Amino acid sequence: MSTYTDQSAVTVLGLGPMGQALAAAFLDAGLRVAVWNRTPGRDGELVSRGAVGAGSAAEAVAASGLVVVCVVNYDASDDILRQDAVVDALKGRTVVNLSADTPERARETGEWAARHGVRYLDGAIMTPTTTIGTPDAVFLYSGSEELYREHRPALDALGGTRTHLGEDIGRAAAYDIALLDIFWTAMAGYAHALAMARAEGITARELAPFAQGIGAILPPLLAEFADDVDDGTYSGELNPITSTVSTMAHVIHTSEAHGIDAGVMRAAEGQARRAIGLGHAADGYLRVAELLGRR
Amino acid sequence: MSTYTDQSAVTVLGLGPMGQALAAAFLDAGLRVAVWNRTPGRDGELVSRGAVGAGSAAEAVAASGLVVVCVVNYDASDDILRQDAVVDALKGRTVVNLSADTPERARETGEWAARHGVRYLDGAIMTPTTTIGTPDAVFLYSGSEELYREHRPALDALGGTRTHLGEDIGRAAAYDIALLDIFWTAMAGYAHALAMARAEGITARELAPFAQGIGAILPPLLAEFADDVDDGTYSGELNPITSTVSTMAHVIHTSEAHGIDAGVMRAAEGQARRAIGLGHAADGYLRVAELLGRR
Ligand SMILES: NC(=O)c1ccc[n+]([C@@H]2O[C@H](COP(=O)([O-])OP(=O)(O)OC[C@H]3O[C@@H](n4cnc5c(N)ncnc54)[C@H](OP(=O)(O)O)[C@@H]3O)[C@@H](O)[C@H]2O)c1
Ligand SMILES: NC(=O)c1ccc[n+]([C@@H]2O[C@H](COP(=O)([O-])OP(=O)(O)OC[C@H]3O[C@@H](n4cnc5c(N)ncnc54)[C@H](OP(=O)(O)O)[C@@H]3O)[C@@H](O)[C@H]2O)c1
Repeated sequence: MSTYTDQSAVTVLGLGPMGQALAAAFLDAGLRVAVWNRTPGRDGELVSRGAVGAGSAAEAVAASGLVVVCVVNYDASDDILRQDAVVDALKGRTVVNLSADTPERARETGEWAARHGVRYLDGAIMTPTTTIGTPDAVFLYSGSEELYREHRPALDALGGTRTHLGEDIGRAAAYDIALLDIFWTAMAGYAHALAMARAEGITARELAPFAQGIGAILPPLLAEFADDVDDGTYSGELNPITSTVSTMAHVIHTSEAHGIDAGVMRAAEGQARRAIGLGHAADGYLRVAELLGRR
Repeated sequence: MSTYTDQSAVTVLGLGPMGQALAAAFLDAGLRVAVWNRTPGRDGELVSRGAVGAGSAAEAVAASGLVVVCVVNYDASDDILRQDAVVDALKGRTVVNLSADTPERARETGEWAARHGVRYLDGAIMTPTTTIGTPDAVFLYSGSEELYREHRPALDALGGTRTHLGEDIGRAAAYDIALLDIFWTAMAGYAHALAMARAEGITARELAPFAQGIGAILPPLLAEFADDVDDGTYSGELNPITSTVSTMAHVIHTSEAHGIDAGVMRAAEGQARRAIGLGHAADGYLRVAELLGRR
């Protein structure tokens, strides 16, 4: 099986906001870039900057040794990659799949790639489109370290910090899903808080600086709670889970008194009350992490 | 009605972790401090540092013109404050209630205080015990601005940033509840993410630095989303709610495949799907904030 080791060309499949940002960063770094998107007409700006707009996914794949896929999920990347003409074109080439999905799907795709002679890396992008090509971007990769090293020169063009998490092809997706869980759950809290604030006559702009203050106190607490979870300590000395549940009940009460759906906090409160019911009233809230998977 | 304007003495009712931290900061600032807690024996360290350990709440109240209450919630502060002997002692004195509860309870307590000749301010502490007396503490106050100014010299001893949010006595609690909502919802996401990570063989300490990275990208996003909510714009151009729902579904699937309760994310996903169902598929996720209170 021949491999394509030209490091100066890259193909980007998928031109949503993120695919466009990736292709633009590759162009900025001086690489030859071929692009394709299912729905035509998304490549205009990139083509005007020198990218080659391919007529089909197979044609785009044929243009480079490195193929970066970034679409909504693995159902979408399967739709693109698992067509006969594309599979043929991919043989000996490297696919780096930057679409988000589950670790399970990443592992299954790794097996599919191995069966079809496609060299395969999985990756995850942890920061918004605006960070791509800047020092603020965060990329996670997993799969063959050798393959990762081979393509680093091109992947480094995307900027930011890049971490290879290990040979398990599912590991980037596992980190991704855990981190997205934190992000979107926090956003659900923010959306709900803004709804409650509005009902209390507080604008989003009034609340935002204080919400940012909450963001600022998180980092040291996250590290401290991680120690609790790994060590199984969960000290509630400074803030017991009973205090947390009392707070959660206030949130639910205020929300529902305003007719605002408190479903997210209701679920969180239920989990915390269960921890208390299981005998952990003196522990800190993070004890919940240990119990969520316990029947 | 006489008032007590001596600024060099303060009483702290409630010696949980936070009450102890407040009393310690008042002592550090050189104030005379009287303390009391429902369960005896919590004042040892403070008394050894010069605080007066009172035998009853009424006795503690009588010692100072400014009475800071910090207990688990307003049921608890009612239990302490609404006893005849305490009400008598409080006449003309100022109570600053730093216990967390709902805006509704704060307003009701403000009315109770007015009826009983008790001068009353409500407050909220937005940062952990370890910040008290340091520049990192964050205090919110609401109620009579004149009264707030009168007691600032003593309250300033608690350190940090202090904001008077207005004359509506419920306003500090309204901010508090919204900010606690963000904090504890984010923590629920973190606890769940750590549970999923563990099931994928990732330790909490391995995940924590990346979780901190998520914390670091939040502040500018929170400000941006606040603009969306106040302006009703909710642009999904860079990240549509359909993409968010896809991510949420991955979290739920991975969680439940590991037997881990995904109730919090299930609730969040349901809210987001409802926004899509109501015709907002092209919007950003924060559109949800507008719909949570809409039937
Ligand atoms: N946007 C961000 O800030 C951000 C940040 C980190 C990670 N990510 C991840 O990056 C990936 C791409 O995100 P995005 O922001 O570009 O938008 P997106 O809405 O998640 O994905 C849009 C892209 O997916 C394609 N697509 C969807 N279904 C398809 C199918 N069945 N067959 C072929 N293509 C299909 C779309 O093609 P059409 O144009 O033809 O519909 C479009 O190219 C996602 O996994 C996302 O989670 C995004
Ligand atoms: N800890 C933090 O990091 C933090 C941060 C910000 C805000 N706060 C807020 O500060 C307040 C106090 O918190 P905390 O950390 O000190 O611990 P807490 O567990 O919320 O409150 C414990 C205190 O409440 C008292 N209490 C409970 N029920 C009572 C009742 N019925 N009558 C009289 N006293 C009663 C306890 O007295 P006993 O000893 O007799 O039980 C103890 O003094 C809470 O509203 C909390 O939300 C805490």
